[in-house]
Order: sequence, then C-alpha cells, then structure tokens
Amino acid sequence: MKKLRVGVVGMGYWGPNIVRNFNLLDNACVAAACDLDEASARKALKISKDILLETDYRKITDALDIDIVCVVTPLASHYEIAKRALEQGKHVFVEKPFTATSREAEELITLAQKKSLLIMVDHTMLFTGAVRKMKDIVKSGILGKLLYYDSMRVNLGLFQRDVNVIWDLAPHDFSIADYLLDVSPVSVSAHGIGHFNGAIEDVAYVVLYFNDNIIAHCNFNWVSPIKVRHVLLAGENKSILWDDLEPDEKVKIYDRGVEVTGREDIYKLLVQYRFGDMLVPKLDNKEALAFEAEYFINSILNNTPVINDGGAGLRIVRLLEACDLSLKKHGELVKV
Amino acid sequence: MKKLRVGVVGMGYWGPNIVRNFNLLDNACVAAACDLDEASARKALKISKDILLETDYRKITDALDIDIVCVVTPLASHYEIAKRALEQGKHVFVEKPFTATSREAEELITLAQKKSLLIMVDHTMLFTGAVRKMKDIVKSGILGKLLYYDSMRVNLGLFQRDVNVIWDLAPHDFSIADYLLDVSPVSVSAHGIGHFNGAIEDVAYVVLYFNDNIIAHCNFNWVSPIKVRHVLLAGENKSILWDDLEPDEKVKIYDRGVEVTGREDIYKLLVQYRFGDMLVPKLDNKEALAFEAEYFINSILNNTPVINDGGAGLRIVRLLEACDLSLKKHGELVKV
Amino acid sequence: MKKLRVGVVGMGYWGPNIVRNFNLLDNACVAAACDLDEASARKALKISKDILLETDYRKITDALDIDIVCVVTPLASHYEIAKRALEQGKHVFVEKPFTATSREAEELITLAQKKSLLIMVDHTMLFTGAVRKMKDIVKSGILGKLLYYDSMRVNLGLFQRDVNVIWDLAPHDFSIADYLLDVSPVSVSAHGIGHFNGAIEDVAYVVLYFNDNIIAHCNFNWVSPIKVRHVLLAGENKSILWDDLEPDEKVKIYDRGVEVTGREDIYKLLVQYRFGDMLVPKLDNKEALAFEAEYFINSILNNTPVINDGGAGLRIVRLLEACDLSLKKHGELVKV
Amino acid sequence: MKKLRVGVVGMGYWGPNIVRNFNLLDNACVAAACDLDEASARKALKISKDILLETDYRKITDALDIDIVCVVTPLASHYEIAKRALEQGKHVFVEKPFTATSREAEELITLAQKKSLLIMVDHTMLFTGAVRKMKDIVKSGILGKLLYYDSMRVNLGLFQRDVNVIWDLAPHDFSIADYLLDVSPVSVSAHGIGHFNGAIEDVAYVVLYFNDNIIAHCNFNWVSPIKVRHVLLAGENKSILWDDLEPDEKVKIYDRGVEVTGREDIYKLLVQYRFGDMLVPKLDNKEALAFEAEYFINSILNNTPVINDGGAGLRIVRLLEACDLSLKKHGELVKV
Repeated sequence: MKKLRVGVVGMGYWGPNIVRNFNLLDNACVAAACDLDEASARKALKISKDILLETDYRKITDALDIDIVCVVTPLASHYEIAKRALEQGKHVFVEKPFTATSREAEELITLAQKKSLLIMVDHTMLFTGAVRKMKDIVKSGILGKLLYYDSMRVNLGLFQRDVNVIWDLAPHDFSIADYLLDVSPVSVSAHGIGHFNGAIEDVAYVVLYFNDNIIAHCNFNWVSPIKVRHVLLAGENKSILWDDLEPDEKVKIYDRGVEVTGREDIYKLLVQYRFGDMLVPKLDNKEALAFEAEYFINSILNNTPVINDGGAGLRIVRLLEACDLSLKKHGELVKV
Repeated sequence: MKKLRVGVVGMGYWGPNIVRNFNLLDNACVAAACDLDEASARKALKISKDILLETDYRKITDALDIDIVCVVTPLASHYEIAKRALEQGKHVFVEKPFTATSREAEELITLAQKKSLLIMVDHTMLFTGAVRKMKDIVKSGILGKLLYYDSMRVNLGLFQRDVNVIWDLAPHDFSIADYLLDVSPVSVSAHGIGHFNGAIEDVAYVVLYFNDNIIAHCNFNWVSPIKVRHVLLAGENKSILWDDLEPDEKVKIYDRGVEVTGREDIYKLLVQYRFGDMLVPKLDNKEALAFEAEYFINSILNNTPVINDGGAGLRIVRLLEACDLSLKKHGELVKV
Repeated sequence: MKKLRVGVVGMGYWGPNIVRNFNLLDNACVAAACDLDEASARKALKISKDILLETDYRKITDALDIDIVCVVTPLASHYEIAKRALEQGKHVFVEKPFTATSREAEELITLAQKKSLLIMVDHTMLFTGAVRKMKDIVKSGILGKLLYYDSMRVNLGLFQRDVNVIWDLAPHDFSIADYLLDVSPVSVSAHGIGHFNGAIEDVAYVVLYFNDNIIAHCNFNWVSPIKVRHVLLAGENKSILWDDLEPDEKVKIYDRGVEVTGREDIYKLLVQYRFGDMLVPKLDNKEALAFEAEYFINSILNNTPVINDGGAGLRIVRLLEACDLSLKKHGELVKV
Repeated sequence: MKKLRVGVVGMGYWGPNIVRNFNLLDNACVAAACDLDEASARKALKISKDILLETDYRKITDALDIDIVCVVTPLASHYEIAKRALEQGKHVFVEKPFTATSREAEELITLAQKKSLLIMVDHTMLFTGAVRKMKDIVKSGILGKLLYYDSMRVNLGLFQRDVNVIWDLAPHDFSIADYLLDVSPVSVSAHGIGHFNGAIEDVAYVVLYFNDNIIAHCNFNWVSPIKVRHVLLAGENKSILWDDLEPDEKVKIYDRGVEVTGREDIYKLLVQYRFGDMLVPKLDNKEALAFEAEYFINSILNNTPVINDGGAGLRIVRLLEACDLSLKKHGELVKV
C-alpha cells in the first residue's frame, strides 16, 4: 500500500502526539520532524528511529518526498508555514486556531483551492467519542428544537504567553457548536479581565447569538481552583451533558424538559416540567487524534472534503476576532 | 419578656416559613396572617392556632397591636404594603427583591428614616451557614486579593410569571457579592433569551465589573436538565467553592493559586501554580431564616442597624434595573 | 366509603409517620394513638385533632371501633402487643424487625391464620420507588443469572440501645434480598465488634449463601465518618447499583459483564469484559410508607395476601437469630 | 558515582515499569532484562538501548556484573528465581505476593540473612503519596485509638488465571494494614465464591481480627459493574478515607466521631456524635514505584533495613494462606 509521507513542524507539547498518531496508520508514515530547538525535534526519535530531524521548516515544506505538512507551531507562524507548504504542493494539517487573522485564513483557503490541496484544521474535539455521539444524537432529532449551548471550561494553569484565554480555549467550543448546531452565530459578546499578565485576559465570558433563538455561552478561566469541563446542549425534548472529566460516564442524555400545556391568558403560557429516564451511552474511546489523522489521510486518498476544513477554521477565527473586538468595546455586541 | 408582635402579609410558598420562624422566637410571636386567598391564609393555623387570619392587608398594617409587618407578596405590591406599614409605624420585613423600582425603594428608605423604623430585606442567603463562614474567611484576609466571583444557578423549573430569570435568581448572588466583596460594582452587562414565555428571559448571563479589577459573573437558567448551585470566590492566595447541593461538604477552601515568580521580559510575568491542602470547614447548620428572624428582632429591640437594610435592598434593585436596561441594549455595558 | 379505623401504639421517632400516612388515605383514618409518655402521644394532634390519645396500649388493642393496630414500639414489646391485638380480632401492622425471636413470630402467624387476620411487617424499603423498579427489572430477566447482592450501609450515629447494628440495619437488606432474589439463603456468617457499648456490635459484616451459587454480603457500621447507602445487585448480563443518597439518579442499570468466550484448557475459561450503555430509570417518588399503607388497607379490604406478611417477617427474624449465633461462634457458618 | 546494576526477570505487564523506574535513578541502572518470550523482553529497549536481553533467567541471576535481581514473574516461580539470585549473592526485589507458600518465604529470608543480602517485596502501595501521608497521620496520634480498617476494592475485569481474587488484591490491603496499624492480626475469616472459572473465587470478603479490639474488613471483587478503591481507617477522634480514584482529593481526614458522654446505667454508655472540619491534605504525587526503587537502592548502599522486607512479605503470605484455609472451611476463623 502506498503510504502518504508526513512532515511535522513544531515539536513542543502537541507535536509528538501528531507524530505518534500519523505514524500508527497503515497508509501514512512520518518522514520528518522539525523544531527550532533541536532537543525538541529529537522527541520524534522516541516514536520512530526512521524520522529525519530538521530545525528549518523549509526542509519540510520543500521536501520532494513529503505529501503532508503538519503545522504545530505557535499561532503567529501558522500562516507563513502553511502558505509555503501549500505553494510547494503539500496538503496541510494546521493546529487550532487556524490563523492569527481571518485574512490569513482566507488567503490560505484560496491558495489550497487553486492548488486542489486539502487543509485540515486540528479541531480535535470533533473527533472525540463524545462529540461524535452528540452529533449522532442531534442528527436523530430526539432533542427537539435546540435551546442553548452552555460550556464551562475552567482550571488552574496553562497560562499562554501569546494569546488570551479566549484564543486558547474558545476554539474548542466554537468548533463544537459550529459542528453540532445547524445554524450560524450572528453576533458575539465577550467580557473578560486579566489579573496577572497585563492586558492578557485570564478570565472571560462569551455569548454567541444564533438564528432560530439559540444562544451559546462559554465560561473560560485559567485561574480557577477547580477544573471543570462541562458542555450542556439543551433541546426542548431532551438535553445532553458532556462532562469530560468523568472517567466512564462522560455523556448523559436527560429526558427532561419544559412542556407548554396551555395558555393562561394572551401573554402567558402554562408550563410543566417533565422528568424521564437518563441514558449514558457507550462511547467509542478511540483516541480523538488517531481518528482525525486516519480521517485526514483517507480524505486525501479518496479526494473527499473534511468537516474541519479551512472554511471551518476560518469561521472560528472570525469568531475569535469578533471576541477581541467585543472585549475592547467592553462586551458590546459584534456582528459576525 | 416582651414579645414583638408580627403580622405576615402573603401566605403563598414562602409566607408559612416566615410565620414558623418568627413564631419560634422567644421575643416575638406571629399575631396575624393575611392572604387574598382565605385558604392560603389558613396555612398559618397549622403553625399556631393563636394566629388571627385576614384577607385585607390593611387589617395587618393598621392593627394597633402589631409591631412588625412582613411583606411576602408578589413583587408588584411590595411598595404599597410596606409604605402603608411604615406610615402606620411598623417595622417592615420585605421579601426580595425589595421593590419593583429603585424609586420605590428610595421612598421607603426615606420614610423609614423619618419614622425611625427598621427595614429588613429578606436576603436570606446572607444568613446561611455557608455565607456566614465565607464572610469570616474573607474578613480574615487569607484569600489574598480577590480576583472574581462566579456563580452558576441553574435548574429545571420554577418559571415565574411576573419576572424574568434575573429578577428571580440574581438577588441571591447580587446580595451575596454585595456582602462579601468590599468594593461596589461600577457597571453591568446582561444577556439572555426566552424560549417559551414570549419576552420573559429563562436563560441569562450577567457580568458585573467592580473597582479594584474584580469581576463577577452569573449563569442563570430555568431550563437546565441538571441542577447546579455553585459559587466560586477566587483570591490570589486561596479560593472558596460553595456547592449548596452538597449535603455535607458545602464549602471548600482551596489553597491553590497563581504565583508570579518573576518577569520574563518587560511585558510578561512568569507564573507558577501552587496546590496545597483543601479544607472543608464545619458550618453552622441553623436554618438561615431562623437566624435572620432572630437577628431582625434583636436589632429592633437593641436599636442597631442590619446588614440587609433598605439600602442593601436598594443596591440590589439598582443592579436589577441595570440588567434590564442592558438586556434591552443587547448586553451593552450599563453604569450603575 | 367505609373507612378502616387505625390505632397506633408507640409515638417515638417513627410512629408519627405511620399516623400521618394512614390518615391521608381515603379508606382509612387514625382513630387513636398511644404512648407510655403522654407528651409523645400528643404528637398525633399535630396531624389531626380528631385522634384520641392513650397511654395504655390495651385501650387500643381492645377498642371495639378499631380495625387495625400498628405496633411501633421497641422490639421487646412487639410480640405482647401484636398478640393481644390479634386476639381482639385486629389486623396488625408491626414495625421491623417483626419480633425478638422466631418463636414469637411463629406464634403470631398461627394466631393470625386462625383468626383470618392480616399481619404486615413494616419492611418499608420494599415500597421505595427504587426497590419496586429493581423488582421489575429482576422479573424482566434482563440481568441474566444473578451473581451476588452487595450492600454497604454505614454512617455515623443512631446507636441503638437495645439491639446491635445487625438487628438495626440488616432487616433492610434481608427483606430486600428476600424480595428480589428468587432463592433462599441456606447459611449465614456474621462478624462484628463493639467499640463503645460493651457487648453491642457497632460494626458488623454479614455473608449469606444462597442456592444457585448466589452470595450476599452486607457491611453495617454505626461509626463511619462517611454515610454510604449502596446496594449492588449483579447479574451475568446487567447489574443494578442503588445509591440511596443520590438525589436524582438513585438507580443505575449497567450493561456490563463478563463473557465466557471459550475455554483455554480443561480447567480455565477464557473471559472478556463487556461495557455498554448505562440507564438511570425514572423512579416513582411517592413516599414508601404512603404506598405501603395504601397497599395494606387495600389488601384487607380485598382480602388479598401481602408480600411483607408475617412469613416474610419470620424469615428475616430467623436470619437475625442466625447472625447472633454466628457472631457468638466468631463467624462460623450457621445453617438457616 | 557508583551505579548498582539491576537485572529484571519477567517483562509482562509490570516488568517494564520496574525497568523504567530503576533506570531513572542516579545510582542504579538496568543492565539486563529477561523473559521467556523474546518479544516481551524486547520491551526493555524502548526504555534504554543499553539493556541486554535474555530469555533464560539464570543469565541474570548468575551474571557477575549484576548486583540486584528483580523477580517480576508469575507467583509460582518467585521462590526458585529469588533463591538462585540470593545464592549468587544478589539482592532481590520480588513482586507481591512474595512467595506461593510461607515455607518458601522463610527459606528465602534465612538465606538472605546468611548472605547479608537485602530482600524487598514490592508492596508498592506503601510508597504512594496517600499511604505515606496516612502513616504520618497515624504516627501523629491525632486519630486517637484506632477502631477499624475497611477496604472496598472492586471492579470489572483482570481475572487472573493462577490465583483467586484474594491472592490478587489482598496483598494491597494486608500490606497497608500491616504498615499502618501497630498491632498484628490474630485470626482471619474469608468467604467467597467463583462464578465463572470453576473453583477460582472472583468475589471474596475477608475479616481480620487484631489485638486491641481492632477489626479489618475487605471486599474484593472482579465482577463489579463499578470500580471502587476505598480504604477507611477509623479512629476514635478522627478518621481517614482514601479514595484512590479521586483525581485530586484522594485522602480526606474527617474530624468526626463518637464521644462517650456518660453512663446511662451500669450497662449502657451515653454517646454523642461530633462533626468537625474535614481536611484534604496535599499529597506527594511522585510515582510510588519511583520512590520505592530509590528507597531500595539507598537501603542497599547504606546497609539499612526496609519496611517491606522479607519479613513483611512473609506476614502477608501467611495471611493469604490463612484465607485459603478459611475459604475451604466456609469462613471459619483461622488463627494466624
């Protein structure tokens, strides 16, 4: 079988996971790994002795025997590296968030289209067993009309140097909401403050308004004494709670809701509350990144589109930019 | 011992609790209870056969042998009843929120001052063992500089007919934050939508900005499949989590935080995370309302001020009005 | 409608609950309540002013206008009071454990049969929504062959004066296991020690062997810093966990188990583990005692047998006696 | 610095952890690894390329340049391999349980003494942050007189082929109780049944009686739908709960207990319940095996005794043998 040859640029915290997962596939292998810091690059050898080490990313983007370039560097360099890779005819896999600006994202998308190359943005969360199950449930229609998406993503630590807490954590929720909801956000409001690092927000609250009377809300925090990873997707008939810290029972489907039972007068509806069974579905616990890597390789080989393409990456970057603007305007609503 | 004589107006859901708790005191007794609905008024007899029943509140406010009038009616009537009680020389205990408008609150406060009468607004939460313990901890200074207040108060049900989810649930958090923090909110932003009852919001998110770089955030929701009652008060040195649904371990004090350990360059601080012991202090589990009733009676007898006086009630009403204004302006920041 | 008239003997901790629940029924009313201590007897008046108070139980057992006598006194007096009530032609409802000895139980059963009267032993647990749901599940057969029953019933407090921790807590589990399992225990082993009150065990561990290779195990404890109320009923296909302290999700049905997939050699089977969905069924949350009281009255009126009759009470007393014997013999297995 | 040279025999599930941890030390290195199955032996190369691979354990025990032999093979072979290693003048580190019989253990201890060599039995649990903290607490005396040790160690899976659930799981609790309590068990009772694999028990309950009115109880289970890892160590003044599945709050110290407040009559004490604060101490989260390996090497270099020596291993094996005997006698108490 032909194996697609992958080059990985950026061997910090996440890069070795990319190397390991692509290297486990039958139809791909990691040919080269690159990091400005040679010691970081060398982590690749723990995974396979056959990986070539580089410190200049152009050795990867320009190599003739590389089919795919994975860009796992700090955000500021995504555009430059991905652009060169596309120009050299490589498919690209880019860490999230896709780019530092929507203009950069648009340019990369155009370039990929012109070259008939695939861009995949690493919205890993979409490939967890939890989100794949949630997508199935949403598609089945059993939730009824969707009401809101509510996320709490807080913990102590992992202060980022170059981005605020929204750019760090919101790509998770923005990409999940983008995938699960059938409607698009029309406006965004973001509040936040930074306690330690000057202007960089370490606590932030984001509200997204969607068409169809759906609202999304996210609570992001790097200075919380407790760790919480909750997503609540509520529908008129059923609702889903995803608690990613639960070892076994990550996803719960509640058969609970509000029922409108009549009309008290012209202004008021009469409501009742319904409490039914709760189901914890078995999830596929395959590592999300393994699933995603396989999906990417197969999409290239079969020439099929991916859900987390450049367009998806761009939509998330636009939301992040809108958050930045709203933050500057003290939470004012920003049209997307 | 002289017993202060209490009249209770409004015997719906909460009124009987007021009757029961005032009636248990050594230096007070409930003399009369009133409700437009006679059957509701009659609930008082289950607590004591010596309580006089009325259906016209003026029989209470105007009675010569009544010292205190408790106003436990729907919000719209608080002002009218409390005003008449004060005019008739009675101390008043008013259900939260204090009044429907800040103008009403101001008028009642002025009237009470003129008459040298006491107003207590029923911010019951302040008298829970949890909040009293939290106040002690804040006062002790062990938390270090306060960073933020974060509350999640969601569940399925208890749709109110006359007020939105903010007017229903925010008085809890606004009064707690007002009590625990030493600084005042300077501006408010509120987002929300209603899914069922026309214009009435059943989901809302509120952000309060305080002086001294403190932020507060509240997540209110009547249509959540799960019930959550979380308050997080974070300080630089320690933080408190109050989970009111925990049967035993309601308050947890985490010795965790961020430590600035140096300066990477002129813009960036170097931070470290600190994880220490966690303490669950024993709480006084006396019923909050019993504590509050006793405190009110003693304050009248000793002629001492109360923490939840008309002024406190007014501050909370002003925040609620600011929320309404911000809601109308799609979350725009409103000065308080 | 004819109302059966109930007399309640013993108004300590549990008696008022009996009075309240029988008095709420359409076809019964509590006519009289009795306690040696007049103040205790008077608790009945808070429930209904029409209840006659007595301090001599014979005024209840011998009253011509009483149909049912509830015996809610300390264990030592169950036999004497129930016997006199039966002799006087009354149906009896007896607090658990039924009697202090199996001989007493046998005598009461014989007497009731001769007089065509009904005995119900207050195995309240059988009428909780949880156990009724568990019985449905067991009957449906979805658990597969039953493997074991495991209970942990520990907390701090409620030291009893006259009985050890087994006589206090085991009637719950023995009656539940008696009801849920289709087989009978053949032998019992009990271990325990007392730390405070001389010979009275405050910690005890009981093992019951059943036919059909089923085992039951109970961990009873009055001196535990934590409260646990866990019952685990495991089957080859599915298993049930009942956590009575969970506010909402008391019963969980796990689709997990061991599958024998082959045979390694003549001695060893090859096994695999199966992990499927988990379901939390909605429970009927009607108060167990209300359900039980209604069931008793209807059984008398319709002349139908009850699941918790004298025979069930006797089986539990025999197990308790076997535990006492095993305790004395340091855990030796005792045939039932 | 001189490095002690380690040879590891048995590279199944646990062996690679032994290799990894000894190899990380400054004063030790793993020189060779052995397994009958060559592919298993080769796992060592992932840890260090400098490790020699063997398939015959005598190449390890007899090697002149090896100072320590780690025996990580199935139980049946511990004795033979450890004996040869001692005869060849090597210190030995033996997987738990130490040996298949107490006679074997005695023989190895005698041999080690004669040769002035050290035996360490891999009672890893003693080196967890949790147990080390618990030992500190016990030594401090704040628990007051110890009352009981209660353990629940249940989950689905990991059926062992050669030993029953007691030999598999009890070494954890027996070694912890041996370490934490200052008194020795005087008798043992064990109950259990096997549902799948013929005579091999997959569910078992063990009671240990100690001097000084202390009791220990263990609930072991391979066929539980839920996983529980609870140890409760109760004292008269305070008690400790260790929940090993808690990510952060593994050890909780409860300031709760029973207080004898007087004497009702000659037979009965009056008791009260005390509820105070609860503390979750910060634990050292260094990997237990890393701590243990370092401790072993230092003990050899400094010629100091270890807590988990052959004697400790022997005490645990004697308890396991007593369990087997009690199981055969249907739970009869067996003197230790």
